[in-house]
Amino acid sequence: MSVEKFKIPEWAFEFHGHKCPFMPIGFRMGKLALEKLGVEKSSNHEMHVLSEMGVGHPQGCMQDGIMAATSATFGKNLMERLYYGKVAATFWYPEKGGIRIALKNEFSDKLAPHEFFKYRKKGIEPSEIPDAVRQDIINMVLTATIDELFNIKILPDFDYKPVKGSFNKDKCEVCGEYVFERYLRVKDGKKVCIPCSKHEPFEKDFYYPVFK
Amino acid sequence: MSVEKFKIPEWAFEFHGHKCPFMPIGFRMGKLALEKLGVEKSSNHEMHVLSEMGVGHPQGCMQDGIMAATSATFGKNLMERLYYGKVAATFWYPEKGGIRIALKNEFSDKLAPHEFFKYRKKGIEPSEIPDAVRQDIINMVLTATIDELFNIKILPDFDYKPVKGSFNKDKCEVCGEYVFERYLRVKDGKKVCIPCSKHEPFEKDFYYPVFK
Repeated sequence: MSVEKFKIPEWAFEFHGHKCPFMPIGFRMGKLALEKLGVEKSSNHEMHVLSEMGVGHPQGCMQDGIMAATSATFGKNLMERLYYGKVAATFWYPEKGGIRIALKNEFSDKLAPHEFFKYRKKGIEPSEIPDAVRQDIINMVLTATIDELFNIKILPDFDYKPVKGSFNKDKCEVCGEYVFERYLRVKDGKKVCIPCSKHEPFEKDFYYPVFK
Repeated sequence: MSVEKFKIPEWAFEFHGHKCPFMPIGFRMGKLALEKLGVEKSSNHEMHVLSEMGVGHPQGCMQDGIMAATSATFGKNLMERLYYGKVAATFWYPEKGGIRIALKNEFSDKLAPHEFFKYRKKGIEPSEIPDAVRQDIINMVLTATIDELFNIKILPDFDYKPVKGSFNKDKCEVCGEYVFERYLRVKDGKKVCIPCSKHEPFEKDFYYPVFK
């Protein structure tokens, strides 16, 4: 069966900074999530993406592709990492439930012997890899069927509670910089920012996604 | 003094999803960091951005602007949050040291009475705000001088140690999915992924940026 080549806007590569196969994998994952959830891209603060990727491993580029396809961006607080080290993500849209999309092991295995990864494992950065090599592996992604690429799990009962926001802010009484109230602390009776409080880094407050 | 209007590519707004003033503020911040550090945008994995923003407050859009201007993206593990609740970021480039750029309180105060924020505080999402109102506040950002916008602190000795990556992966012996080795755990003698290990969410491993 001949598959029509999936199209990715050139600006998505410009945003990402280089041509590689995993940004396109994420782009296709994001588009698929929108389609399956029956929603448009998130102009404002609609869809949340819980990426199962972590740090210290390759293929995180997937996440830039998801952001480019869906506008569920890190800057808008719509993309969180779960630090599971998997090429997978769960997409949650208010009142629509969730969908988990994971790259199939088989597709990962199909890509693995490609010359692109021989360069990468030698420490050669994507933009230094010959263009023909990169285009070839990207074409493998763009011409694959959804069924070849992804395992899809519809999660109609998946719930997620985005953190509630506030516009309140005040100046740190030590350095004078504005601080959103959630992050003001108290030190010697003064309202101060976290660096001026001299709290140790491991005392940092993280927001843990709430989901079932 | 008349200031030439700063230009932002249209795709940066398309990526972000809406027109607002803080994506452009971040874009200008990112471009300024590249200029001050004397470097190009990060095609691969060069510059790291430590954003001082957190969650549960507005203006995080700044981070999407930084990513669009510099290609130091979340997907490439080049952008971390420090959770300080400030409109500021430190940019680190190998062998170049760092630079901290913070939005001036005065510019924040200048923007604050704008009609744009009256809409936002009523809970109206950016894309629903009249275009003329949005364009007007964006123009305030694009025509401001660097000196009106930012406090800049050059940090020649600032050091940062990005996490070391590995391509190693293996299949979880319960669910069968590929997992990067860093995130494999052991349960009943089997190598398993974090969800299959049934670790509680608060046991999640986070990577803490190391800097002085």
